[in-house]
Amino acid sequence: MTRLPHIAVIGAGAWGTALACSAAQIANVSLWTRSPVAPDTRSMPRLPDVRLPERVSVTNSLPHEADIVLLVVPTQALRDTSLALEKNLPAHVPVITCCKGMEQGTFALPLEVLTQTMPDHPAAVLSGPNFAIEIAKGLPAAATLAASDLSFAQDLAKRLTTPTLRLYASNDPFGVQMAGAAKNVIAIGAGITVGAEMGENARAALITRSLAELGRLIETMGGQARTIYGLAGMGDLILTATGPGSRNYSLGIALGRGESLDSILAQRSTVSEGVLTAPTLQKLGKQHGIETPIINTITRLLSGEVTPERARDELLDRPPALE
Amino acid sequence: MTRLPHIAVIGAGAWGTALACSAAQIANVSLWTRSPVAPDTRSMPRLPDVRLPERVSVTNSLPHEADIVLLVVPTQALRDTSLALEKNLPAHVPVITCCKGMEQGTFALPLEVLTQTMPDHPAAVLSGPNFAIEIAKGLPAAATLAASDLSFAQDLAKRLTTPTLRLYASNDPFGVQMAGAAKNVIAIGAGITVGAEMGENARAALITRSLAELGRLIETMGGQARTIYGLAGMGDLILTATGPGSRNYSLGIALGRGESLDSILAQRSTVSEGVLTAPTLQKLGKQHGIETPIINTITRLLSGEVTPERARDELLDRPPALE
Repeated sequence: MTRLPHIAVIGAGAWGTALACSAAQIANVSLWTRSPVAPDTRSMPRLPDVRLPERVSVTNSLPHEADIVLLVVPTQALRDTSLALEKNLPAHVPVITCCKGMEQGTFALPLEVLTQTMPDHPAAVLSGPNFAIEIAKGLPAAATLAASDLSFAQDLAKRLTTPTLRLYASNDPFGVQMAGAAKNVIAIGAGITVGAEMGENARAALITRSLAELGRLIETMGGQARTIYGLAGMGDLILTATGPGSRNYSLGIALGRGESLDSILAQRSTVSEGVLTAPTLQKLGKQHGIETPIINTITRLLSGEVTPERARDELLDRPPALE
Repeated sequence: MTRLPHIAVIGAGAWGTALACSAAQIANVSLWTRSPVAPDTRSMPRLPDVRLPERVSVTNSLPHEADIVLLVVPTQALRDTSLALEKNLPAHVPVITCCKGMEQGTFALPLEVLTQTMPDHPAAVLSGPNFAIEIAKGLPAAATLAASDLSFAQDLAKRLTTPTLRLYASNDPFGVQMAGAAKNVIAIGAGITVGAEMGENARAALITRSLAELGRLIETMGGQARTIYGLAGMGDLILTATGPGSRNYSLGIALGRGESLDSILAQRSTVSEGVLTAPTLQKLGKQHGIETPIINTITRLLSGEVTPERARDELLDRPPALE
């Protein structure tokens, strides 16, 4: 009988818990959480209805060894957690970040943080259209596993694919991470069209054309344009820009109705990451000489510089363009 | 004062009527319908709540001259209508098809039909995520205007763009037409995931991965892979594969629930074009040596060869792949 691999999942929020449940189909899993837990616990607070499989053991100790480590902490906690993890983990153990967005202040993408905190570890990123609860329940899903070295990405994808979670390998980790951050901005834009009652046509056009902008930006910055249309980009956007469950989408709806960003944020306890990402993308577009009219318009809407009506007229009134 | 151009719209269904209303912002419009109408009519039966602008005149006579002709009849009526149109129209008048899908029997795309029926006319295709009623009401929208000759497409796009309908030029009319036909098949597939209660993750993954298949197929057949991600492909799909209003999507939902195609079609008076397009795409994939696992699976589901459960397991159990 072959030994089951040991997959260490760092972070027991909804997504970490879900990935632990999925990985238990093919591996023994240790699920690390900072919060104190009873040693015999069989459910985690962020997915209370899901019973942890037998092969998942919950722990408060960061692993000293593992075949693969999945880092599933929030992006803003990635630096500290990975620094602590690095202390005891042998350098040959591959580490996969499963978080999206950019670090506040530095605007670093998750793998850029790891380059600083765990420079000796082979690293990859996992991202896709994945509601945690569905993954935990074993419903079918797919995601992208990306690393600069394609054969490394292929190997990891093969080792982590489970009977219900299919992984596709990519050698564009930069594009995958940019897509994961940028989709929040598009979700805000899509929400604005809904809040301002511009119609379904406008929403579809905005999503399509903003993905084209981001493809150009990613390509100019060294990634692959088509990554924006993969599972981590368009795929994930289908989940977050078509249903009101998303924080970014619902923020866009409120903006489109004419509420100010300040008044929307005052009513919320959670951050909508797209609010911080939008001006960063605008700046990157400018830096790299790429026209990003929709990103710029969303940024100006967020800052209160234009009204939704004015924004619509400006976008319609631009010079003719190629698809 | 410059003379307004004359745009002739052939076909007064919902889409033709909507395009006539939009074009009236920049042109005098003649709107041809086969059905007898009162000369002073100000609304058309398929968009009864929309009042025709002053600049639209309804007629039963096909035009003998025009600056631009928009052919907005159903694809299955395109051959006969364009043959009749050709008799009196000077050969220099550009003709733009605004219908989607393939001709039954011949599997010809709309522009292929025109090559046979109006070979001397410069031709283009218009396609995008456009609910007719929204266009008629002047809500903002965008579409692609494609012709083999890019400068011709750019010229037409410029001449037809209105203050509320923004056109993007493309030199990939083949890809635009394939996208317009293929999106119906993806809408069926998306519906199946919903009917079979596979979850949102599965729906997003199916849409993303089937667009990737179609991009490869279009490219191998001489078009551009990225066209599938444009307004006529992904953009249009956002309209039709996320809301239950679409015939193809709702057919997929019924299939996913386990109903047979025969029993679904027996309850319907309208055709779901994707049912005919799916096996055609499968055949094209085979002919051109392109793997189209999702298209093939949808085709086999339509023919009753596999159940949704079996189809899901097959798709998850395929060999590892690249994004």
